[in-house]
Amino acid sequence: MLKTITNRGINLRKNYSQTSSILSLLNDDKLGQHVFIQGWIKALRKQKEVTFLDINDGSTPKSLQIVSSKKNVPKVTVGASVSASGLLKQTAKGQNEVSATSVKMIGECDLEKGYPFAPRKRYEPQYVREYLHLRPRTKTFASVLRLRHAAYLAIHNYLHQNHYINIHTPIITANDCEGAGETFKVVPDNEQLLKNMAKKDVPFDNAYFDTKAYLTVSGQLHLEAAAHALNKVYCFGPTFRAENSISRFHLSEFYMLELEQAFLDDLDDLLDVVEKMIKHVTADLLEHNFSDLETCSQQKIEYSWIDKEFKRIPHEEALDIVTNKLNTTVPARQASLKRMKWR
Amino acid sequence: MLKTITNRGINLRKNYSQTSSILSLLNDDKLGQHVFIQGWIKALRKQKEVTFLDINDGSTPKSLQIVSSKKNVPKVTVGASVSASGLLKQTAKGQNEVSATSVKMIGECDLEKGYPFAPRKRYEPQYVREYLHLRPRTKTFASVLRLRHAAYLAIHNYLHQNHYINIHTPIITANDCEGAGETFKVVPDNEQLLKNMAKKDVPFDNAYFDTKAYLTVSGQLHLEAAAHALNKVYCFGPTFRAENSISRFHLSEFYMLELEQAFLDDLDDLLDVVEKMIKHVTADLLEHNFSDLETCSQQKIEYSWIDKEFKRIPHEEALDIVTNKLNTTVPARQASLKRMKWR
Repeated sequence: MLKTITNRGINLRKNYSQTSSILSLLNDDKLGQHVFIQGWIKALRKQKEVTFLDINDGSTPKSLQIVSSKKNVPKVTVGASVSASGLLKQTAKGQNEVSATSVKMIGECDLEKGYPFAPRKRYEPQYVREYLHLRPRTKTFASVLRLRHAAYLAIHNYLHQNHYINIHTPIITANDCEGAGETFKVVPDNEQLLKNMAKKDVPFDNAYFDTKAYLTVSGQLHLEAAAHALNKVYCFGPTFRAENSISRFHLSEFYMLELEQAFLDDLDDLLDVVEKMIKHVTADLLEHNFSDLETCSQQKIEYSWIDKEFKRIPHEEALDIVTNKLNTTVPARQASLKRMKWR
Repeated sequence: MLKTITNRGINLRKNYSQTSSILSLLNDDKLGQHVFIQGWIKALRKQKEVTFLDINDGSTPKSLQIVSSKKNVPKVTVGASVSASGLLKQTAKGQNEVSATSVKMIGECDLEKGYPFAPRKRYEPQYVREYLHLRPRTKTFASVLRLRHAAYLAIHNYLHQNHYINIHTPIITANDCEGAGETFKVVPDNEQLLKNMAKKDVPFDNAYFDTKAYLTVSGQLHLEAAAHALNKVYCFGPTFRAENSISRFHLSEFYMLELEQAFLDDLDDLLDVVEKMIKHVTADLLEHNFSDLETCSQQKIEYSWIDKEFKRIPHEEALDIVTNKLNTTVPARQASLKRMKWR
């Protein structure tokens, strides 16, 4: 009976959204058919009779070319959002493009009123960072966001297939996890609320939780408890450190993956879990997000390692490589690794 | 070439872990074979010559029965963890059980030294809540954790299949999202660190971020920026409210799903997204986690609605039902809904 539910699918009033994604159109879905797309203009070339528009809709780093007779195209600029409909066909060079019979403006974009990105120009990260809210409009950052999404989901699915259960360990916690790092404390912002909740033997700031509360630096302790009932568990959520550092090695907030597993007594079994996961997730990204990887990489992507066994060496040997043989440009970090002796 | 990578799979030294999950053994994998399991004793019955052990390993709410001659079983109690190996066979009643040739104690559990759960007894939530770290050992709470994991992943996968991109909107943020609720502020716990970072024109507490920082009450503003480049985006992370309330309607920390989508101008299209998602996720849970749903539910699970169209009514009509016709036991909540007039 349950099989029937999922097999017969979900009935709905209509096949919602007639819009095709640019990813699907570049993959030849609907070649020779009339299509409808919506997206942002990445580049614009006007010829005497014809206008060419490169359109991107966030589904892929690649843009789809729209060709239209000039009279059908409203006054638009790069950065504006448009819809277009027409025939999807292949050019002599094998590129898919839309021969548009209609192009409509959705939202304008005035370059002279401050839109910071000119067409076909690449910007340095420090420039792009000045326009945080527009950052996803750049090709590289959009690919980073798609890759992060894909990698995050691939990790979850890999662990699920291997029977690990995701535990949402608490973000606000009363433990500082064995002093793993500098912590942030959490206090209600509303002073009046704290006054209303005040208790005799509790410090004013702690009135809300009746104890001091921190942002988590690790879900380990909560995971260990869960592992003693569910066996294979993990958490993969935001984690926090309040270090006084603005180096590349510090983030106040980041996502951390932690696994706990009962009944694991062989180091090689544990290393297998890690090696398999890294290879599976990488293979998934190579298969589904290759153009995003190419967009982010300055050089050819090297992935022959995926089919080789990871070398396994004793900790002492690894420490020797890191401290003595590794040609690192990061002296501060190296120094801290040098202190990390095997105990 | 990429296809080859994922098709040939990942080579590893060995097929790690010889342990079978109890879920797989209850599903008839390896029937008639010699198997090895590890888990916790949920119930224990000793007869003259034979001992029966119900073992659970967190992979399912059901336990697997181990039958062993008494002399092969060490001194164990309910709650202890054991390993067992033997032949997986089917009883006359059609139940799978292991005829164990070896049972070994892994970790003992002394009931007299405070383990709070006696075998085959059901406890009220308020009792179980007193033993937070042991809560996942109870059948109901373990099922809740598996269901939460399955539902969370099903939502992510549904959105991924429909080309939504998960954005990790920041947890620590300088905006209070249009005053969506009472906020928590975030401050480094280390006073000396704050002193070191102090700046002339910045209040002492704000020295770390150079501004007041809150825990997020909504990812909406960040999502809207992302939607203007990537089109279909969502976030599904921890969210915080500092209300002074210990009712069932308040959580300081909870997971909230938020979607943003560019180019959506038809309310029915939006309602389709929501209806399809709820039905797909429910169908997924019914298919893969039915015994967990049964464990948590006091009554027969009613899911015939999954195959019907959701009724769509104007907001005024919904408000009328909630305020005048709904037989609710929650007067305070009803009162607040009464104030929620259509503007």
